[in-house]
Amino acid sequence: METEPTVNTSFSHAFRFTQADVEAFAQVTGDNNPLHLDSDFAAATPFKRPIIHGMLGASVFTKVLGTEFPGFGSVYLKQTIEFMRPMFVDLDYEAVFTIISINPDKHTAEISTEIFDVLTRKLTTRGVATLMHREKF
Amino acid sequence: METEPTVNTSFSHAFRFTQADVEAFAQVTGDNNPLHLDSDFAAATPFKRPIIHGMLGASVFTKVLGTEFPGFGSVYLKQTIEFMRPMFVDLDYEAVFTIISINPDKHTAEISTEIFDVLTRKLTTRGVATLMHREKF
Repeated sequence: METEPTVNTSFSHAFRFTQADVEAFAQVTGDNNPLHLDSDFAAATPFKRPIIHGMLGASVFTKVLGTEFPGFGSVYLKQTIEFMRPMFVDLDYEAVFTIISINPDKHTAEISTEIFDVLTRKLTTRGVATLMHREKF
Repeated sequence: METEPTVNTSFSHAFRFTQADVEAFAQVTGDNNPLHLDSDFAAATPFKRPIIHGMLGASVFTKVLGTEFPGFGSVYLKQTIEFMRPMFVDLDYEAVFTIISINPDKHTAEISTEIFDVLTRKLTTRGVATLMHREKF
């Protein structure tokens, strides 16, 4: 049953990326920074191994907000993103979405968007999304 | 010749996306919202035709910041994004990057990130990136 989202409603989404995803993201966006693609280059950085593009990690926000919570009909107005810790391929992450505020007159909501490393429970990425949805808010 | 970026230094990058790019972005991110992929669905929205994922448009920020200005060695710390107007495939856009402030102690800079529709000169997307680069800042 579909319920109307209210303040403090939250939604969780588990995900992981593969190196093939990183390569596809590099291809479509043109961001071919070797930090994401080249193990030898990455080995000489403080990260030691290739890290996921921060924007690829954050793309879980557009996926979930656009297709699941609140879903189809969402119009994305704003997103702030803090890249707090590197993210890696083949690791389990959890994105957590929590409604902070709703403006029923404007049909908009502010939603906290966070990504946690499932194993360590450390926050890798956080921000706030602002969305309009004419039916849900 | 490589010059040291200073406050008010700016950099411009022309780009466009195709529907194949939008489909590839939907595939890798999982954001298969029909607003981006289905002409019939999009025709019934205020946009009339499919719009690019806002995050795909904003991915020009990670591309340019990560590979050109300031380029390889950049560590992405933060990005704010306002999706002001829809973006469409097969149209010319210009991304403009302008250094707002530099903190030499932390090797960080704040960079204004804007996308303009080349034809109308209207701003479609704007935000501020915060980056660390040990050599450039």
